[in-house]
Amino acid sequence: MSNTFQAISPIDNQVLEGTFEIADTRHIDETVKKAAAAFGHYRKKDKEEIARFLEEAAAEIENLGDRLIERCHLETALPYARLKGERGRTCNQLRLFASVVREGSWVDARIDTAIPDRLPVPKPDIRHFNIPLGPVAVFGASNFPLAFSTAGGDTASALAAGCPVVVKGHPAHPGTAAMVADAIIKAAEKTGMPEGTFSLIQGNSFEVGEQLVKHPDIKAVGFTGSFRGGRAIWEYANAREEPIPVFAEMGSTNPVFILPNALKKRGSQLAEGLAGSINLGVGQFCTNPGLAFIQNSEDSKPFAAALAAKIKQTPATTMLTAGIKTSYENGTKHLGSLTNVEELASGQSDKAPNQAISKVFETDIQHYFQHDDLSEEVFGPSSVLVNYDDQNDLLKVAKELEGHLTATVHGTEEDLANHKELLDILETKVGRVVINGFPTGVEVCHAMVHGGPYPATTAPQSTSVGTNAIKRFVRPVCYQGYSDALLPAALKDKNQLHIWRMINGVLTKEDVSS
Amino acid sequence: MSNTFQAISPIDNQVLEGTFEIADTRHIDETVKKAAAAFGHYRKKDKEEIARFLEEAAAEIENLGDRLIERCHLETALPYARLKGERGRTCNQLRLFASVVREGSWVDARIDTAIPDRLPVPKPDIRHFNIPLGPVAVFGASNFPLAFSTAGGDTASALAAGCPVVVKGHPAHPGTAAMVADAIIKAAEKTGMPEGTFSLIQGNSFEVGEQLVKHPDIKAVGFTGSFRGGRAIWEYANAREEPIPVFAEMGSTNPVFILPNALKKRGSQLAEGLAGSINLGVGQFCTNPGLAFIQNSEDSKPFAAALAAKIKQTPATTMLTAGIKTSYENGTKHLGSLTNVEELASGQSDKAPNQAISKVFETDIQHYFQHDDLSEEVFGPSSVLVNYDDQNDLLKVAKELEGHLTATVHGTEEDLANHKELLDILETKVGRVVINGFPTGVEVCHAMVHGGPYPATTAPQSTSVGTNAIKRFVRPVCYQGYSDALLPAALKDKNQLHIWRMINGVLTKEDVSS
Repeated sequence: MSNTFQAISPIDNQVLEGTFEIADTRHIDETVKKAAAAFGHYRKKDKEEIARFLEEAAAEIENLGDRLIERCHLETALPYARLKGERGRTCNQLRLFASVVREGSWVDARIDTAIPDRLPVPKPDIRHFNIPLGPVAVFGASNFPLAFSTAGGDTASALAAGCPVVVKGHPAHPGTAAMVADAIIKAAEKTGMPEGTFSLIQGNSFEVGEQLVKHPDIKAVGFTGSFRGGRAIWEYANAREEPIPVFAEMGSTNPVFILPNALKKRGSQLAEGLAGSINLGVGQFCTNPGLAFIQNSEDSKPFAAALAAKIKQTPATTMLTAGIKTSYENGTKHLGSLTNVEELASGQSDKAPNQAISKVFETDIQHYFQHDDLSEEVFGPSSVLVNYDDQNDLLKVAKELEGHLTATVHGTEEDLANHKELLDILETKVGRVVINGFPTGVEVCHAMVHGGPYPATTAPQSTSVGTNAIKRFVRPVCYQGYSDALLPAALKDKNQLHIWRMINGVLTKEDVSS
Repeated sequence: MSNTFQAISPIDNQVLEGTFEIADTRHIDETVKKAAAAFGHYRKKDKEEIARFLEEAAAEIENLGDRLIERCHLETALPYARLKGERGRTCNQLRLFASVVREGSWVDARIDTAIPDRLPVPKPDIRHFNIPLGPVAVFGASNFPLAFSTAGGDTASALAAGCPVVVKGHPAHPGTAAMVADAIIKAAEKTGMPEGTFSLIQGNSFEVGEQLVKHPDIKAVGFTGSFRGGRAIWEYANAREEPIPVFAEMGSTNPVFILPNALKKRGSQLAEGLAGSINLGVGQFCTNPGLAFIQNSEDSKPFAAALAAKIKQTPATTMLTAGIKTSYENGTKHLGSLTNVEELASGQSDKAPNQAISKVFETDIQHYFQHDDLSEEVFGPSSVLVNYDDQNDLLKVAKELEGHLTATVHGTEEDLANHKELLDILETKVGRVVINGFPTGVEVCHAMVHGGPYPATTAPQSTSVGTNAIKRFVRPVCYQGYSDALLPAALKDKNQLHIWRMINGVLTKEDVSS
């Protein structure tokens, strides 16, 4: 008999109904082998079939109705409105990938035609496109139980790429995971996908994830979560006989730079915006701004006061899990214990279990440079305000930054013109540079980069959000000397899929001229 | 005073003129720091400037004239004609990357325009393209002293991407490396590139490479060579505080499958072709066919006899280094010592130092499956002929293959139609599938994939030959809320670089309409 576990609601620490199997070695092995068996068929599905499957998965998730939102709320304490928004994002994301698959050009078809009479040797016919890697392990994230979990961006992009997916559900929301998995499996059945194209395994122990990553039939991993978790998975993947790519998005502190004229002209508005970004989703966003820099001036004190006022009004709010609440409390205690790092403001007291009290700390640039800890992510609604003296401080901060998901700069036109070097350095340190906005809120679109240099991710050459995320789960292959009959549809002389192709170096939708 | 070393000619084991500094810790550090300092300026060069630099480098290499060929011949024993061909390939490769840079669309520009009145939240303006990673360490390869070394494909693609390059020259051809490096540096000076854009360091110890890879300012590595060497570099890179991508092409045995009707119809022609491919460049090609499969039939013995006849006629030829010769001898001895692996034929005796004697071994499918060693690369002019019984054997062979650079299938139209499953499996195991050709000869073009699953490479999602190789040295970054003035040229509203861009999901050369 297998072991089981139950979900615990962070709202009241009560056990929720429903038991979930902790996948054992045999179950994991069977699940991955099914995925591997499905791969040979799934990868040959035509683009219309895969697009329909993804669209059907979105429809089936919507069909779950309020049941899904209610269960998810109990498991995560996230409010209904947010969860409904996240469901919309999840389903739109599936449909967006369906549209990418249907359009079809993402496969990067390249055709170099033969020159049989070239000297000294003939030039062969060579044709190239991207093929899926194989079964992908996806780890559900705690903080986006829908959009970064069972049917989230990793799953959507891997399925779109032609890879079967085995999701390891996050133990904080197993009921949500199970409901969404059922919806995807129903969609797979309805649209004739092979059994094993999608599976969910659950478990509240680290071993389940480790065994999944180490299974020889798994060919890539998608993960969103902590540095510790992502790093461990990356190490498992590298310790395999065949190392595999790990696309781990591990969060960061997402520094915000408020330049002098912006501080002067719209300080109180920026303080309000920053407080909102710090507290969005109880600070449980990978892109939460954990550091903000303002210049010592007559404008810095009013800014700090306005920020403090907003933080003080912030009600304590329930976090995703008791463990996350404890880590947040330890993290903010540690920040407050650092020399010359003062608590600037604290939000309202907690009134229920697992509620986080928003906190902002303040320090000066000298102590910022002394405390490496200030650059480490504290997951939750806290931030550190750093008072710097002049632009050289900012350039030094930027140069010494490790990899982050985002960097944000607030400035007037004049500020930005005066800080071009800062912008130049920042783009080498992050995946996304935001001007006059806030980093929270990651648009799902073609141009998004949700990624960045290590330690923000283990795969700086990729994005985990947006349509380009599909490229993570493919590799190029080329065919030399193939007859038209043997070539895959995307590479035949006639452009029967009507996709963009590079023929002898020129991008075109034309057929190969014979 | 620094240590030095000298080149030894494999032709006669004599020390060649010229001494070369073994880079010490300080020299390596200074060189990489110069590259890092150059990066900020070099990456901002416009595409025309970088294109001219690459073209000038090609011209300067050609200007070295016969001096280069003569020195290279002494250092590698490779014949003049081959080296002249390789020089042509090297210079054409630089010019091809110049054309890619000049055309400019490789940066993958993507623009999603804002929708300020979208509900519930406005859609921001987000623009995406690829930026260079930073200084790249390139390891010269022994077997292509020009095309995969100092000015080879890794260097050309990294420079094209906007990355400064530090080459660690292969100790077997330091004079060649120095001459080519001088040519590139001359080109860099002529075209106004910052000092440190390109550097060569030399050394005959492993530590030089280790220190280079571990230097914090190095952001990626290109390598072509042995599995042991590539794997060690990959481990150094992963042990860094900031792990970096390693694009190591580590060779493979490149299995060749000769299907029954092809064997019957053109067996002797195929035997001749296979012998030629085995012996090309004294077998010192990453794509050398180390395994060939034929079906037991009335046609197999004549094929083996024809292959044996060709091998017996093959003159012993000087290998690149004494070390490579010793490894080859040990490798072929080991193959011959395996149970039921028989020597089918041996080439002519050696008459000078470091000459390899071509060898072909023969075994049956049962013993192939027993000896894992048969799938390991023996670098040099040897191969193993495996007699199989039926198609199921081939499918089993294919399914159990590790990652290889190439797989080759010879077949009539009927054969190929009968072996679709074999082709299907092979494309999941290699970077390039060749039909009715031979794997040796890697075309430098847009569609080439010179890569493949581990252990053929450490980076199966890339190619080290062809224009797509440029993608190895970049990562995506996106700009949110930037004014047109602050955006890089490739992403401004007006398409001033005339490149293909994806605007709101549609590929176009139009401007962004306001």
